[in-house]
Amino acid sequence: MAHGDIVLGANQYGKAECRLVRVDRPATGEDRAGAPHRITDLNVTTQLRGDFTDCHLHGDNSRVVATDTQKNTVYAFAGEFGVGAPEDFLLRLGRHFVDGFAWVEGGRFEAEQYAWDRIATPDGPHDHAFVRTGAETRTAVVQVDGAEAFVVAGLTDCVVLKSTGSEFHGFPRDRYTTLVETDDRILATSVTARWRYTELGLDYDALYTGIRDLMLATFADLHSLALQQTIFAMGRAVLEAYPMVAEVRLSCPNKHHFLVDLAPFGQENPNAVYYAADRPYGLIQATVEREGAPTEPRAWAGVPGFV
Amino acid sequence: MAHGDIVLGANQYGKAECRLVRVDRPATGEDRAGAPHRITDLNVTTQLRGDFTDCHLHGDNSRVVATDTQKNTVYAFAGEFGVGAPEDFLLRLGRHFVDGFAWVEGGRFEAEQYAWDRIATPDGPHDHAFVRTGAETRTAVVQVDGAEAFVVAGLTDCVVLKSTGSEFHGFPRDRYTTLVETDDRILATSVTARWRYTELGLDYDALYTGIRDLMLATFADLHSLALQQTIFAMGRAVLEAYPMVAEVRLSCPNKHHFLVDLAPFGQENPNAVYYAADRPYGLIQATVEREGAPTEPRAWAGVPGFV
Amino acid sequence: MAHGDIVLGANQYGKAECRLVRVDRPATGEDRAGAPHRITDLNVTTQLRGDFTDCHLHGDNSRVVATDTQKNTVYAFAGEFGVGAPEDFLLRLGRHFVDGFAWVEGGRFEAEQYAWDRIATPDGPHDHAFVRTGAETRTAVVQVDGAEAFVVAGLTDCVVLKSTGSEFHGFPRDRYTTLVETDDRILATSVTARWRYTELGLDYDALYTGIRDLMLATFADLHSLALQQTIFAMGRAVLEAYPMVAEVRLSCPNKHHFLVDLAPFGQENPNAVYYAADRPYGLIQATVEREGAPTEPRAWAGVPGFV
Amino acid sequence: MAHGDIVLGANQYGKAECRLVRVDRPATGEDRAGAPHRITDLNVTTQLRGDFTDCHLHGDNSRVVATDTQKNTVYAFAGEFGVGAPEDFLLRLGRHFVDGFAWVEGGRFEAEQYAWDRIATPDGPHDHAFVRTGAETRTAVVQVDGAEAFVVAGLTDCVVLKSTGSEFHGFPRDRYTTLVETDDRILATSVTARWRYTELGLDYDALYTGIRDLMLATFADLHSLALQQTIFAMGRAVLEAYPMVAEVRLSCPNKHHFLVDLAPFGQENPNAVYYAADRPYGLIQATVEREGAPTEPRAWAGVPGFV
Repeated sequence: MAHGDIVLGANQYGKAECRLVRVDRPATGEDRAGAPHRITDLNVTTQLRGDFTDCHLHGDNSRVVATDTQKNTVYAFAGEFGVGAPEDFLLRLGRHFVDGFAWVEGGRFEAEQYAWDRIATPDGPHDHAFVRTGAETRTAVVQVDGAEAFVVAGLTDCVVLKSTGSEFHGFPRDRYTTLVETDDRILATSVTARWRYTELGLDYDALYTGIRDLMLATFADLHSLALQQTIFAMGRAVLEAYPMVAEVRLSCPNKHHFLVDLAPFGQENPNAVYYAADRPYGLIQATVEREGAPTEPRAWAGVPGFV
Repeated sequence: MAHGDIVLGANQYGKAECRLVRVDRPATGEDRAGAPHRITDLNVTTQLRGDFTDCHLHGDNSRVVATDTQKNTVYAFAGEFGVGAPEDFLLRLGRHFVDGFAWVEGGRFEAEQYAWDRIATPDGPHDHAFVRTGAETRTAVVQVDGAEAFVVAGLTDCVVLKSTGSEFHGFPRDRYTTLVETDDRILATSVTARWRYTELGLDYDALYTGIRDLMLATFADLHSLALQQTIFAMGRAVLEAYPMVAEVRLSCPNKHHFLVDLAPFGQENPNAVYYAADRPYGLIQATVEREGAPTEPRAWAGVPGFV
Repeated sequence: MAHGDIVLGANQYGKAECRLVRVDRPATGEDRAGAPHRITDLNVTTQLRGDFTDCHLHGDNSRVVATDTQKNTVYAFAGEFGVGAPEDFLLRLGRHFVDGFAWVEGGRFEAEQYAWDRIATPDGPHDHAFVRTGAETRTAVVQVDGAEAFVVAGLTDCVVLKSTGSEFHGFPRDRYTTLVETDDRILATSVTARWRYTELGLDYDALYTGIRDLMLATFADLHSLALQQTIFAMGRAVLEAYPMVAEVRLSCPNKHHFLVDLAPFGQENPNAVYYAADRPYGLIQATVEREGAPTEPRAWAGVPGFV
Repeated sequence: MAHGDIVLGANQYGKAECRLVRVDRPATGEDRAGAPHRITDLNVTTQLRGDFTDCHLHGDNSRVVATDTQKNTVYAFAGEFGVGAPEDFLLRLGRHFVDGFAWVEGGRFEAEQYAWDRIATPDGPHDHAFVRTGAETRTAVVQVDGAEAFVVAGLTDCVVLKSTGSEFHGFPRDRYTTLVETDDRILATSVTARWRYTELGLDYDALYTGIRDLMLATFADLHSLALQQTIFAMGRAVLEAYPMVAEVRLSCPNKHHFLVDLAPFGQENPNAVYYAADRPYGLIQATVEREGAPTEPRAWAGVPGFV
């Protein structure tokens, strides 16, 4: 054919953003107050890979596991097996699709998890009433390639700020440089981080909490000469403390807080009054990894927004 | 004139969304660790009212306090006077514009406030590093009308959920009714509330915390037969406990969580697996007030999104 | 009761954001190409008012027309009666609820409408394939109060810009004023406008198109000395040309485009290179009305975002 | 060192989302009406790659071209050289940074472009007043690697819909499948597409218009058995018509429009009344390429959101 040379390349498809809330209740017979409800609040995306050429070329759907079926499977699995850590839930989903359909060779399975706290009442934390914390969103990506699976955990929208302890100077000056050097500025960012585990079967919930807290404490404690330095330190701290983490990728906007010039109004501004800008913003992206360790591009295939 | 009967009606103008961050540091000589920084993070809008007819009809700006000047004033006032509670900051701004320009007769002054927590480190809460809590946004509206001023405090985007303790039945059925009655459902909403104070000079920060916590505890504790009942109870609790609050207005979407039908997959679903829907959503809006107490429409003029 | 004096004030409830798409096809037997499909794409909100005290106080739902029933009614009416102009659709909905339930005394019925164009193909505009124009969103609000009804039409997110023909000078200068006067600036805004009709039974679609086009042409043609002047002229033009319009309310951010200072790089900048800022922004809001004409606050009850 | 084995991997940094508007005016002496203004409205992001190890490890900024300098360069270049097609503007920026700083080895340079139409007036299209079309956003990515450069053009948020001419059946059924087959459904999506050029120095503006129109016409004309088939056909049409395009990558949500069941209300629904759902949605992503042609991963490095 005249256009016989035009072919299907890499492709994937699935159902995106299945909003799933699972409520786990105390076992029958237990005292409710003593056994509070737990809620797991996820946004689940499944994406299958394999040979779907006939569908793309001819509209033959005989191999197309409907995205509606994928959605049903998400909810059915939440019923049959519970949810638990998002990584475990995604691994189970991924195995199901790859093992259950001969032509499905792999896929990407993702989730965002939203955090809830118990509502404080005069009688203590309530057993079945919750408030969204609204802090960062936890993320999880599981990639399945045949019999293998890879887990990348992460967080996003974690907004942090240091009101001092940040400098920026010594940068090169060319004809387009007007920025003044500073030895005391606000440093603020919204951390997006992802880290790859080298093993399966980990306690992903505990790891998440530990790694999240360590990254924040590192941000807080490092006297920063550049956001790059801060980001690298955050990744390095994780790799030092967690041997099962192979690499950390970070994407951090520099959320500029500009000191307002109050001189026209007869005032000094001793690092007190700032304008928080929207756009443009600096954007710093880096990978922190172990020298000589094997990379695993399959763990990162199509993960959006990273270097 | 042919169109002499077309006139300017109600109008206002100003600068919207001045993003202001104020850092308050320990006084010189104090130990930093013992006197942590405080940050106040606001989004400030000023809107002036008065006779601006010549500008609208003829482009005569001789009475138009430039919105750029309004913005400058926001930052200059943050430098001169500090910020403190947003209500106090807005009252000061409002008096400045209404007292300082003869033709400015009043205005609306608003702020959103974003909350930050200290970052937890192995050495305790850090003294100058913060993480955005991301929970609800605090709101404040000050309306000035000549010598008078009115304060409306509030919150928005406060997402709460009860995993049980909510029923909905007994509603009328017509030919368009298909909804099944339930005696156990998830109740979830994103609370937007505003309340009007009858006095000035209050401790707005302490009141905010008390009222916010009380509304949440009421949401948690009430066994709910309708979101309307829950909302009214939240407002009533505030009025009962806080005599300086004249009325509470609430706007609460019913964030539907639909129990997934797992029967096609051979499973029961004992209130465990839910689909969290986006749109459409119920929307319940109500005012809770004191019978016979005077209303004050000037406090609510142009406040968006309310009944 | 100890708190008998705390009562329910103004309230309303309903189903928000029912996303409704109606496809109208050529009648059977007609040639498809000669009778193209029409699509009507709405986001419909219904809000009922009346005596719902027992629900708020006691959770008695016997008068609560379920929001799910309201949603069903929206879709059923689209099937039974078609949609047509959003104002007509909302009037029909409103009458149904107020006439059909004795205790429902009124309500607010709103819609946003999204515009679609036929896709251009080599054979001409396609008869059943469309592309969202993405330009402004049309809005409609119908308020019902017993036997009366009021119609407010409008538009939002209509982003317009003049690259010259805009000045701003002559404003008062105080100690906080730093803005430089200009006789040539970019004027840009995102128009939100609503206008109230004094009659029912109008050709709302034709009126919408005429009023929208007239407002834009007025924006284009007026040499502007202030955004206030432009806004007033837009409203006045509508009132002059459309006697069935009683008043126009406009809310227009001044989307600042700042001329970039290129002098540090050895360049002049003859009104060529601009930075388009996000926040803060000026916000100008005004009503244009007919002198001495009766107002109708019921038409505007709870309409968000206006003066 | 104890953690000597933790190293910096891939990284990049720069200034994101520089909002740039360039106005081009008729030359002096020309008649304004005959030489209308042109506006170019871009959102520009620059990201540099190279050896920035010392900054990440030690906070040494001697090689860090400040993101503020990058921003200045964007605006200065718009002044010095004009803007033109975004691809040309980005190529010029890219060469500047890579050629101008010895340690900068490459980078990614991106832009979004927003489209404006002249406002229609009774006297014809206005010469200096514009309205944002709001339709799709044009995108451009230039990657520089030493002396080489790669251009990827694209569009996003192009929302299209077919009201008939779309079927979906023949998909496999397992125990989680409940979807009913259909031979007439609404097909709607929001197209994100990117295509890679094999040459530099092209007429990027004309190519953009041609490719955009061709993709839309293909969407319109293909009788669709699956969104996959539609997407592939769109990509194939581009490759057939444009030999300078090496590959097309598409990411298309299946924006579900569900036929509403009106049977409970005694009505049939002959493909007339639909509910437009938000989440979840199908997500179909595919690459269309030329068999045997060389790939160029450097053109796609870190481009977000693709397979």
